[in-house]
Amino acid sequence: MFETTTHATPQHPAAMQRSQLLIIDLLRHACRRHPQQKIVSRRLEGDIHSYTYVDCYQRSCQLAHALTELGVQPGDNIASLAWNTYRHVELYYGVSGIGAVLHTVNPRLFAEQISWIINDAKDTWLFVDLSFIDLVTEITSQLSSIKGIIVLADSAHQPALTKVAQQVLNYEQLIQPQPNQFDWPALHEDSAALLCYTSGTTGNPKGVLNSHRAMVLHAQATVSHELLDLRSDSVLMPMVAMYHAGAWGAPYAAPLAGCKLVLPGAGMSGEAMYELISEQQVTLGLGVPTIWLTLHNYLAEQQASVPSLQRVCVGGAASPLGLVKTFAERYNIYWQPIWGMTETGPLACSAPPEPELMALPKEQRYAIQTTAGRACFGVDMIIVDADGKPLPHDGESSGELRVRGPWIAASYYQREDPEVFVDGWLATGDIAVIDPQGYMKVVDRKKDVIKSGGEWISSLEIENICSQHPAVNESCVIGVKHPKWDERPLLLVVPKANTELNKQDIYQFLQDRIAKWWLPDDILIVTELPHTGTGKLVKNELRRQYQYYLMEQSS
Amino acid sequence: MFETTTHATPQHPAAMQRSQLLIIDLLRHACRRHPQQKIVSRRLEGDIHSYTYVDCYQRSCQLAHALTELGVQPGDNIASLAWNTYRHVELYYGVSGIGAVLHTVNPRLFAEQISWIINDAKDTWLFVDLSFIDLVTEITSQLSSIKGIIVLADSAHQPALTKVAQQVLNYEQLIQPQPNQFDWPALHEDSAALLCYTSGTTGNPKGVLNSHRAMVLHAQATVSHELLDLRSDSVLMPMVAMYHAGAWGAPYAAPLAGCKLVLPGAGMSGEAMYELISEQQVTLGLGVPTIWLTLHNYLAEQQASVPSLQRVCVGGAASPLGLVKTFAERYNIYWQPIWGMTETGPLACSAPPEPELMALPKEQRYAIQTTAGRACFGVDMIIVDADGKPLPHDGESSGELRVRGPWIAASYYQREDPEVFVDGWLATGDIAVIDPQGYMKVVDRKKDVIKSGGEWISSLEIENICSQHPAVNESCVIGVKHPKWDERPLLLVVPKANTELNKQDIYQFLQDRIAKWWLPDDILIVTELPHTGTGKLVKNELRRQYQYYLMEQSS
Ligand SMILES: Nc1ncnc2c1ncn2[C@@H]1O[C@H](COP(=O)(O)O)[C@@H](O)[C@H]1O
Repeated sequence: MFETTTHATPQHPAAMQRSQLLIIDLLRHACRRHPQQKIVSRRLEGDIHSYTYVDCYQRSCQLAHALTELGVQPGDNIASLAWNTYRHVELYYGVSGIGAVLHTVNPRLFAEQISWIINDAKDTWLFVDLSFIDLVTEITSQLSSIKGIIVLADSAHQPALTKVAQQVLNYEQLIQPQPNQFDWPALHEDSAALLCYTSGTTGNPKGVLNSHRAMVLHAQATVSHELLDLRSDSVLMPMVAMYHAGAWGAPYAAPLAGCKLVLPGAGMSGEAMYELISEQQVTLGLGVPTIWLTLHNYLAEQQASVPSLQRVCVGGAASPLGLVKTFAERYNIYWQPIWGMTETGPLACSAPPEPELMALPKEQRYAIQTTAGRACFGVDMIIVDADGKPLPHDGESSGELRVRGPWIAASYYQREDPEVFVDGWLATGDIAVIDPQGYMKVVDRKKDVIKSGGEWISSLEIENICSQHPAVNESCVIGVKHPKWDERPLLLVVPKANTELNKQDIYQFLQDRIAKWWLPDDILIVTELPHTGTGKLVKNELRRQYQYYLMEQSS
Repeated sequence: MFETTTHATPQHPAAMQRSQLLIIDLLRHACRRHPQQKIVSRRLEGDIHSYTYVDCYQRSCQLAHALTELGVQPGDNIASLAWNTYRHVELYYGVSGIGAVLHTVNPRLFAEQISWIINDAKDTWLFVDLSFIDLVTEITSQLSSIKGIIVLADSAHQPALTKVAQQVLNYEQLIQPQPNQFDWPALHEDSAALLCYTSGTTGNPKGVLNSHRAMVLHAQATVSHELLDLRSDSVLMPMVAMYHAGAWGAPYAAPLAGCKLVLPGAGMSGEAMYELISEQQVTLGLGVPTIWLTLHNYLAEQQASVPSLQRVCVGGAASPLGLVKTFAERYNIYWQPIWGMTETGPLACSAPPEPELMALPKEQRYAIQTTAGRACFGVDMIIVDADGKPLPHDGESSGELRVRGPWIAASYYQREDPEVFVDGWLATGDIAVIDPQGYMKVVDRKKDVIKSGGEWISSLEIENICSQHPAVNESCVIGVKHPKWDERPLLLVVPKANTELNKQDIYQFLQDRIAKWWLPDDILIVTELPHTGTGKLVKNELRRQYQYYLMEQSS
């Protein structure tokens, strides 16, 4: 499915209008169909801001005029360092609408990585939220292509920025005098629109350059019942950042569906989430497992609940059975797993609450909710062995996952990577199984797989089982050097607040649940584990730190 | 929105995979996601046939092999004269899948028109249902390009066809020996896939040549909540024919959604419909108003009901308020208006039961259900005056409707028509108003508008009001010659069975409901009105017949 064509033009063409799939039309559609629907944002200024899709569109038009006046040309890269707020949404539409490219930079990276990325992309203007002013001040002298910095605030909130080399402008001042209609260019749909770098755990970050076509088709899939099933009465709160894989396309999908969009700004605490969900009657949240663990911890502590919340869509990491259950049984919230990566739109798979699934016995359903789901229309998936030979979808064979489709990257920006882009497929680096119903499960990252005596041990599987222990808050399994077996698993555990936990408890718990040879060679009780800015475990760091741990123990 | 581009390639390309939107992937998607879902058909052989999407796919593969063996080449046109059954669905996939073009011929046309169309398209093979064998025998000597006739039956049901000049083959025999997997070509998505002639009331029929891309994007829109809102637990019964505008795309949309597809074959009677709806638990029907009137008449007569049926999607003609109400209040069925034409995919507009609509007072909602609905994502709409100048969407101004989008025709097949294809828009020939919420209402066909003393009278509007009279079964207003006003309206009315109805009743009913100068100059009570094969009134014929009626009366 979704094979790539080698024909530049059709051999036997039909006679359809050459209308293009362009990002700006997602917002124009919201304006004609749901003009009064709201975008609600927690601002960096501290308050809650609310306006309509028509307001958003008019300000995106003003931004387009302002960019044109600044001399921005089609194809120029424009950087943002910003949270999820309405101004960032305006950048998503205004910048791409004129044929320029919005480059959403991840502010959680190291300062050197950030300036490296901005220089690599040759970004010409940088839009920045108030909370990243210090960061920008720190890196300003490194930025070789940036002509000016635009602070996402009104002039009353504009800081001095005396130590910045480039010219500094104010966002509200910039757009305020501009007309609120714009004559958008009729671009080709394969034009570049959104640039996202993915922060590999090794080597330099790599850019994924998304097209208008890809983002529109991705938005249509996202709205469909195979992914988020968004409707005009949904209230969508993306906790995943607009600087990380386009907030999973939420800023594009929400206006297409005409649903209310609730943007958390910098408010990532349990309390801030609870407030916004309750006040805005959020029905659907998007985020990594850690975010929903944070919400759960807050709710448990406060004995609070969020009755409006019907579903959380959870990706970026595997869904632990413990949380799936807790959300179902304690909160009546459907935990909907999602799989994707920056290179894949990002959304590609999910397990939405389809009637057939909901009809299954509870435990069977929960098990499916810990998979990564099934591919939506637009994505083809295979698993291959080490030689690239396709493996059966039998729920047993595991191999590297390859994906293909109209919103999957065909190469990195300005970079070759023949290991990732193979025979018209994207090699994901995820080791997965696919069952006969099409449910895919990531059993490991290619580099996280533990190879013990030539056999594979899934670190994720052990972590999943650990997560079901009542006193475990988080756990991490890494492969470390072993004199005999080459690699053996080492388990690190963070206990829940105010609980007692020791090695023996965990061994006892694991003993009945996993094969003997999978039992970690040692267990360490720790107070915390390192995470990336987007909430993923940084296993590389732990691997480095504990690399020789077993060697030292045994010597 | 949805402007057509003049760029052949993007100026600043992104780096996405060149995966194409191809029709065959709709069915392949159903196979991996809903392999056991059913297609149920009333066969021409008389029985009910049921099989799965996997069966359908495997037989489409067999058909593709058979076509290849027959020497069918990409770009060849292959004709069908067939009802809605699973074999016709296999033609939709097998023929287009190999890059050939399925030409669905309307068997209800006059025999000369049918042979004219088949010759015009230079169709090479003709697939024909048992009920059209006589028709084929009649026209066989006229068919200059047809190499052979394939009867859609098994060999036990194959008739002799001795008077046919071309070779005659049997469908089941043809495909049976073939392998059930096929290596589909990676076509360009702009390739031709489906050819539908639209039978204009004047002049020769004109072909619309649809692309793979258009049909896939149309299917995605169709499945979305803006049009049919199809899900895996929907049971869809298209009463609209697969030879008429692709059964509104139902054969493409159903596998995409994974819903059960129920195909009525030649069973168009109230009884046949009732049987299929009840046995298959149909939730959603597609068809012209006449079809639902037929169902209602049957149910009323039999004192029967169809509790599974939740919605009927109704297009091809305006939705009469009387039926909207009856379906809501008597059957609890939502009457969902749809607008489209062969040149527009066909689906472009609808008024689905969105939460905001359902929250309105009943009478307001009914009023909206008599509009043609709002444009879905993918379709832009304007109304223009006689000079092509855009008119406001104020719910008052009426002008010719123009539409634009990726599944709208850019020209007729092998024909120029500068009056229809204007400035990148399709001029629809419908006179419409659009209100500020985006609801469009066809107030007339350009050629049905009555021009009385330089002012326009809407024949449709008068017909709509008539339909609310309890004793009126059907009505028709035409403009006929008048010595003073140039044209004046004449009303023809078919009373309901077993009811008394006279001119004066109707005049009284109309008096309070329309402007005085709109009142028809005369009213004729008739026993029936002429319809096209697809259930539309043939006003041209009536106009011809009654052209001088008022002249003769007044003289
Ligand atoms: N549902 C999931 N289950 C397991 N791993 C996931 C899931 N979703 C995302 N990931 C991981 O996150 C990676 C993508 O990271 P990123 O590009 O930063 O979004 C994938 O390649 C997976 O390794």
